[in-house]
Amino acid sequence: MNGAETLVHTLLDGGVEVCFANPGTSEMHFVAALDKVDGMRCVLGLFEGVVTGAADGYYRIKDRPAATLLHLGPGLANGLANLHNAKKANSGIVNIVGDHATGHLQLDAPLTSDIDMLARPMSNWVHSSPSASTIQADGQEAIRQANSRPGRIATLILPADTAWTETTFPASQPDAFGQNAIRRANALVQTEPEAVLSDESIRQAAQALRLGPTTLLLLGGRALRANATVWAGRIAAATGCAVMSESLVPRLERGAGRVMVPRLPYAVDPTLAVLAQFDKIVLVGAKEPVAFFAYPGKPGVLSRPGCECITLASRTDDLQAALQALSDELGASTGPVALVAAPNVAQAMESFHGSINPDNVARLLMALMPANAIVADEAVTTGRSFDKAAQGAAPHDWLNVTGGSIGFALPAAVGAAIAAPDRKVIALEGDGSGMYTLQALWTMVRENLDITVVIFANRAYKILLGEFSGVGAGVPGQRATDMLSLDRPDLDWVALAKGMGMQACRVSDMSEFSVGLQKALAVQGPALVEVML
Amino acid sequence: MNGAETLVHTLLDGGVEVCFANPGTSEMHFVAALDKVDGMRCVLGLFEGVVTGAADGYYRIKDRPAATLLHLGPGLANGLANLHNAKKANSGIVNIVGDHATGHLQLDAPLTSDIDMLARPMSNWVHSSPSASTIQADGQEAIRQANSRPGRIATLILPADTAWTETTFPASQPDAFGQNAIRRANALVQTEPEAVLSDESIRQAAQALRLGPTTLLLLGGRALRANATVWAGRIAAATGCAVMSESLVPRLERGAGRVMVPRLPYAVDPTLAVLAQFDKIVLVGAKEPVAFFAYPGKPGVLSRPGCECITLASRTDDLQAALQALSDELGASTGPVALVAAPNVAQAMESFHGSINPDNVARLLMALMPANAIVADEAVTTGRSFDKAAQGAAPHDWLNVTGGSIGFALPAAVGAAIAAPDRKVIALEGDGSGMYTLQALWTMVRENLDITVVIFANRAYKILLGEFSGVGAGVPGQRATDMLSLDRPDLDWVALAKGMGMQACRVSDMSEFSVGLQKALAVQGPALVEVML
Repeated sequence: MNGAETLVHTLLDGGVEVCFANPGTSEMHFVAALDKVDGMRCVLGLFEGVVTGAADGYYRIKDRPAATLLHLGPGLANGLANLHNAKKANSGIVNIVGDHATGHLQLDAPLTSDIDMLARPMSNWVHSSPSASTIQADGQEAIRQANSRPGRIATLILPADTAWTETTFPASQPDAFGQNAIRRANALVQTEPEAVLSDESIRQAAQALRLGPTTLLLLGGRALRANATVWAGRIAAATGCAVMSESLVPRLERGAGRVMVPRLPYAVDPTLAVLAQFDKIVLVGAKEPVAFFAYPGKPGVLSRPGCECITLASRTDDLQAALQALSDELGASTGPVALVAAPNVAQAMESFHGSINPDNVARLLMALMPANAIVADEAVTTGRSFDKAAQGAAPHDWLNVTGGSIGFALPAAVGAAIAAPDRKVIALEGDGSGMYTLQALWTMVRENLDITVVIFANRAYKILLGEFSGVGAGVPGQRATDMLSLDRPDLDWVALAKGMGMQACRVSDMSEFSVGLQKALAVQGPALVEVML
Repeated sequence: MNGAETLVHTLLDGGVEVCFANPGTSEMHFVAALDKVDGMRCVLGLFEGVVTGAADGYYRIKDRPAATLLHLGPGLANGLANLHNAKKANSGIVNIVGDHATGHLQLDAPLTSDIDMLARPMSNWVHSSPSASTIQADGQEAIRQANSRPGRIATLILPADTAWTETTFPASQPDAFGQNAIRRANALVQTEPEAVLSDESIRQAAQALRLGPTTLLLLGGRALRANATVWAGRIAAATGCAVMSESLVPRLERGAGRVMVPRLPYAVDPTLAVLAQFDKIVLVGAKEPVAFFAYPGKPGVLSRPGCECITLASRTDDLQAALQALSDELGASTGPVALVAAPNVAQAMESFHGSINPDNVARLLMALMPANAIVADEAVTTGRSFDKAAQGAAPHDWLNVTGGSIGFALPAAVGAAIAAPDRKVIALEGDGSGMYTLQALWTMVRENLDITVVIFANRAYKILLGEFSGVGAGVPGQRATDMLSLDRPDLDWVALAKGMGMQACRVSDMSEFSVGLQKALAVQGPALVEVML
């Protein structure tokens, strides 16, 4: 058995059962190993940003890492933007990045680059496996890293000769994990000491929350799973405090039957307005809110001056347990909790006609969203009004662009759909942001993934038209406007979808949108709706 | 005047007159400066790989750097793969990468990353400009770096507050460069001491070349410009030595009226066969040939064992002068030189019918290529037979994927067309490699660039099907084949082009191809032909 086959075995034994891939020559032995070792689902992306974004989406839904397979430095580079989002989401990923054979590096062949340095900014752990005899242990360590709490980006560099050299497997110790892949994965979970909730932090947080509506309970990371928010809901019912989530979240479980947790706004001024109400903020897996960008004359820290932030628990903690402990401290755990009522779809569907605007779009989307849908949200400007409507929709998971790196939603939808084949995935995408990783449509078709893509076509980087004045640059002239607009030529997403084998339609008013979206959602597979704004 | 406007002035004063851009919020003041300062042509790409690849193509034709404008770490990351190609081509580029305002970095906002570390592997020079008062000097240094011989990748990080803060311009010294932008650019050229040709290296090289056909004169970099190859031709005529170029070259000026300079093959075995003939290799701007990848049991250095390599001049030298000095030493400078005859187009056009194969494709392309065309070549497997035919075509420039990083040709064609608006640009592109940066089609249409795109649709990563057995992995099974094939679904490049506003046609036999290519070449603007293989 060679090093590549050993690595595939190691991944499978560690519960890594999906590999998103865009290979090249230096990864051919890994590709060959897929034929020889049963059990790995390998999914091809036609660009590496699709590969890494899919691995992020997969982890967010599955809570277990997938592998990626990337070709040398340039292949890794193409995947870095979505690794940035994944790192900020605390997603666990095992990147396998091929490298030249060890002896070939000194020849400085054209594709030679410093892979280690490229990987570090968007990885939590980087290691090059020097030989086939070390690849099992190195692969196990990469899986451990990715499975840490919270998840980590582990980048394992695989020189071609490490892949092709013969070795024995298992390398040394007998397989101690037994037959069950999940149990094996759990056995490999990083066991570094967890941050322990202190009685003191619980007491401090409880004291602040007892003050009621002037205290905000701010949730982030896994505190936004339904089994955690229910405790936040009990705390709110008992104390009258506000409960909100960070602006950009890896995965927000919400909708009917769950506790309502509004997201902080994205922009500075509305966030300042919201946070002006609070003297104290209790942070549970969240950070003190800061501006996404700096703006001349505006603050970077968005809590009101003098506001006290109390960290109950960070993302290395068990956030559900932290909230439960806090609820116990407050005597709220046996008390009532307000859950969102089931949506009245018939009523919501009454009147979809007339022109398309963000509020109508939000109402329609939320009326039609099937139960247990997963939404990958990169609707940017159009999507700013979705949050309120989504609170009252059927129960669903909502995934944000946690790192602000554009080109997230289409790849993330691929990964989510592979993680949860029985759930409908909806990608809400701007026409500008969608262009960064549009190759994801092809993978959706090849794998026949149950994804409805909605493209909001305002034919501009509309967010930047707002930011232009927001940073104090005034009103854009012709040359600036040219840099911020996507007209001349118009993008035709129906044609782009057709080019990658996906069925698609374009809608220009709300009644067309209503019909088009219902048809797309009814497909058991990928379909695209281009919404002309 | 703020720092951004100062930088735009500095770029223009330094002869940097084109900026390929994909901006975000942190670059809005630079975008605003484009309105306020006249003279910068700003070209929008809908993905950063388009931006950096265009800057590479521009430099290769113009011999002067363009700027890029990239959004923070993720925007830079998306551009790195084509910066890798540009660095290996010794292209000069001034990357302007926006960063958060200095005080904002400590807040660790979502888009924060280590831009400096990301930039280093694919840059020759990286610097963050700390304030508006330093931006002029920093910009000048970046231009100097980019204008070095050979060209360099200069990455200037522009914090948002450096861009928006008011300053005076010029910062300190009076403008010493006068009115002419080219003269100013020349004044800024890096004046580091050049490697000087030694009499000894000239004597050694001449001695080897006098041995005749067992010596190879191997050219790279600017030794492949027509004004340099003519001296190589005189040397060959006088000594009987062979003249060839490296396999992947930034820009090869060849065709009718020029000296014939065949390229070394790409693959290991044919290269070994060619190089087995030579006891000595004289290197002029070239490196000793090495394998692109390592293969088990095959050598990495491809010259025959015992072959002596003599470096006449490296890429920091004036390679034309080096060849002329060598020619003088050999008494060849007043002697004859064999130039390629004008092509007989009428004869070449006689018989285009029947099925499409690489040899027929090569003959048709070379028959129809207009004089002074620029060819951006990423035809990968299909293109391996083009080299021989191209030798006899009308005079043209041929640009290769110097770094082996896929997604080069469409962006490079954009840059070349902007550098030379009076020349026809032809992008020869594989369907697999084209998918990495297909967004370039949109920029071609927006700027109405005179580019004919030819997509060779074999619906596979066909090069990898060959490499699979080449690395000793045997015959791919179903799972490996899935990773190497682009069918299911078929890509439809006519639809993809339509989606970005470009006219396109599909051809399935040689007579259709002949008609379709003639029509596309007759368009004064962008057009695409999808060739079904």
